[in-house]
Amino acid sequence: MGMTEALSALDTLLGQGLSRSKSDLDLHGRSESHFPVMAPDAVAYPRNTQEVAGLVRICAAHGVPVVGWGTGTSLEGQAQAPHGGIAVDFSRMSAVLEVSPDDMDVRVQPGVTREALNMELRATGLFFPVDPGANASLGGMASTRASGTTAVRYGTMRDNVLALEVVTPTGEIIRTGSRARKSSAGYDLTGLMVGAEGTLGLITELTLRLHGQPEAVGAAVCAFDDVAGAVSAVMDAVQMGLPMARIELMDAASVRAADAYAGMDLPETPHLLLEFHGSEAAVTEHSENFGAIAQGHGGAGFDWATRPEERRALWAMRHNAYYAILALRPGARALVTDVCVPISRLAEAVEAASADIAASGLIGPILGHVGDGNFHAVLLIEEGNETELETALAVSHTMVMRALDMGGTATGEHGIGLGKLDYMRAEHGAAWSVMGALKRAMDPAGIMNPGKLVPPMN
Amino acid sequence: MGMTEALSALDTLLGQGLSRSKSDLDLHGRSESHFPVMAPDAVAYPRNTQEVAGLVRICAAHGVPVVGWGTGTSLEGQAQAPHGGIAVDFSRMSAVLEVSPDDMDVRVQPGVTREALNMELRATGLFFPVDPGANASLGGMASTRASGTTAVRYGTMRDNVLALEVVTPTGEIIRTGSRARKSSAGYDLTGLMVGAEGTLGLITELTLRLHGQPEAVGAAVCAFDDVAGAVSAVMDAVQMGLPMARIELMDAASVRAADAYAGMDLPETPHLLLEFHGSEAAVTEHSENFGAIAQGHGGAGFDWATRPEERRALWAMRHNAYYAILALRPGARALVTDVCVPISRLAEAVEAASADIAASGLIGPILGHVGDGNFHAVLLIEEGNETELETALAVSHTMVMRALDMGGTATGEHGIGLGKLDYMRAEHGAAWSVMGALKRAMDPAGIMNPGKLVPPMN
Repeated sequence: MGMTEALSALDTLLGQGLSRSKSDLDLHGRSESHFPVMAPDAVAYPRNTQEVAGLVRICAAHGVPVVGWGTGTSLEGQAQAPHGGIAVDFSRMSAVLEVSPDDMDVRVQPGVTREALNMELRATGLFFPVDPGANASLGGMASTRASGTTAVRYGTMRDNVLALEVVTPTGEIIRTGSRARKSSAGYDLTGLMVGAEGTLGLITELTLRLHGQPEAVGAAVCAFDDVAGAVSAVMDAVQMGLPMARIELMDAASVRAADAYAGMDLPETPHLLLEFHGSEAAVTEHSENFGAIAQGHGGAGFDWATRPEERRALWAMRHNAYYAILALRPGARALVTDVCVPISRLAEAVEAASADIAASGLIGPILGHVGDGNFHAVLLIEEGNETELETALAVSHTMVMRALDMGGTATGEHGIGLGKLDYMRAEHGAAWSVMGALKRAMDPAGIMNPGKLVPPMN
Repeated sequence: MGMTEALSALDTLLGQGLSRSKSDLDLHGRSESHFPVMAPDAVAYPRNTQEVAGLVRICAAHGVPVVGWGTGTSLEGQAQAPHGGIAVDFSRMSAVLEVSPDDMDVRVQPGVTREALNMELRATGLFFPVDPGANASLGGMASTRASGTTAVRYGTMRDNVLALEVVTPTGEIIRTGSRARKSSAGYDLTGLMVGAEGTLGLITELTLRLHGQPEAVGAAVCAFDDVAGAVSAVMDAVQMGLPMARIELMDAASVRAADAYAGMDLPETPHLLLEFHGSEAAVTEHSENFGAIAQGHGGAGFDWATRPEERRALWAMRHNAYYAILALRPGARALVTDVCVPISRLAEAVEAASADIAASGLIGPILGHVGDGNFHAVLLIEEGNETELETALAVSHTMVMRALDMGGTATGEHGIGLGKLDYMRAEHGAAWSVMGALKRAMDPAGIMNPGKLVPPMN
């Protein structure tokens, strides 16, 4: 690795856009989750695609790792630099390039965050629905194949990225996809890049699908005696084809945390939070249908939040649940699990996880995007406490292996990064080696986000 | 190429399941479209995945081409064998393996046709929505990334294939995806295989997403003075977010052909055919909304087909339109164009195509899945008439280049095969070379459907 030569060349290319300050390296070596700091050797702040391409060509020539960085909110260490190298921070490539209301699409640079995009779209009657909670960058969300609360209605990043501009591992600039709504023209390179976690190239521009702001929005919250009742209601609603825009589970421990953090006074039992989008008539009809389903499973206090401020409070509570849970144990770090199972196995998976967490002695509230079969336990561990970390990893391990047994996945939306690498063989078998072959084909030098997602390269 | 040795080994493996009869070779060398016969050297009829894997290993060892075959309804010569080799006919792998109503998914073998699957699902309240018109096999539909009339509501094969079993070009059996509704676990190999036209392996099993049969279905037909009025109505409806299950354009020439073929008596002007799915209330509301939009664009005779038999007649007419158009010129072959453009450019693209066709002197009715921006001209040419074929190819060329200029694609749903290979560089630029690199990584010997989709291998 010719790091010295690479840094010299990058300094010439980027000038002020290359930082080696201790604080910058430290910041770009951290993650939101439980991983220790793994810092890059330098942080680049490119301003355009040409600079990214130049940067990658320099790193390729010198065998220096390249790790993309959006807002640092990934949960599996995707943007950390275990092999050092250059962190490419896209915060200076954060322009909304072109909104096309007639085609309901938008071209953005990768550093635009989802909230910034939706601010920009406010006057158009359109919005970008994918909502992982954190105000992540759109480049990062695409790379992680992010989803969140609205995926049950609007799909994940896989469904909402129409086209990309990518700098390949050899520093070439390519375009994948088109602005057509569908195409059968060859391999779906857009789909291959979405979820590749920066191991096949860096996303330098995205064309995203937009959706019309619904005429009416209705939100509701409903308490259940137990998780089984709540999850059974979800399963019924999914199987009925009820078009829910969001359907979120918070278990009793999550509700307790949220009450304390947000000053709410929900009863400390499992809750479902729902949102419906559509015409006034449709929202009313669907909510009534759900109310009937909930009642059949012991749902109580089914409460409509029709006023925007009530809805905002409800979803703010849900969005802040992660921080509310962290606040249960000041100074703790979180290990957040992320399994996703077929909907018919959801109740069983959630109940088994609850039992495992109770047996472990950890604090680990459960919440999730249950309409997709995806749920999280936020396992709190004392920073630096290896025993607790091991206990949490053991709980997560059991959840993952159970999900795989059920025909599910180790990660519904958080990705592989460093944290789930050990499950790729178990989940994919020989198909993981195929991923390795594709990686070697596109990145023979192995410079793009090394140590993540694919089998170790020889 | 050790064809003799390969055939001997295949004979041992497959016995009666290997055919070299003249009629079989001829049948598997044909296509529905204008291409001349390109026959394989033998036709294999495997009964299970192990036989497919054994077959591929033999072909890999001897450098013999392998071409998948479903029902032979592809329109770009995807299943023809320009380099000879073995046609793998999946008609004996046509079992519906497992229907899971609770999870709304189904596992099928690749030879199951979409109509056979929906027959099997009748009693479940579920259905598989992707409908390219022809009663194609699901393996073929996945390989072509097929879509059709319902994609505007239910998506294409890309959106409805959850997981696959695939025999790789080295004869290994892999599984891609899972039964979870979403996953962030590594590269989307399922998405990579869907639309790969058998160039990266053979699909031996599919897990498909099912949808609930709608409570109510409403269909409508509406006449317009001109194509511009019809397309403007479509654009308005799409931009309003009206949830149409189908919205199809037939131009005046298509309507004329359908009237003659199906004994209908629609006025010979452009028509839109629509279908809405939902609750009774939603179907009524959405249809009224569309009626108002249509009226604003000169739509007349907006007619509701509420009775099932009327709906069936309407969609039978649309589904048979291809054959109705062929019947306009007995003995003719068709060259069917397939561009897809951003919705804002749709009127312009259709009108320019109409003018081109008129100027060419060919018969070429236009119809299409206009809610996606996708439309077809069915250009009729006399079998063996090279001048007419060249004229038709010139019309298609102009349509493709115009679509690419508009940010669209050369093929919305028919795929690349032989017919669109020359447009891959124009559409994808350097990204086409990336497709070639991926192909070489998975199929270094180049045996899987050679001559299709990717750049020629050295």
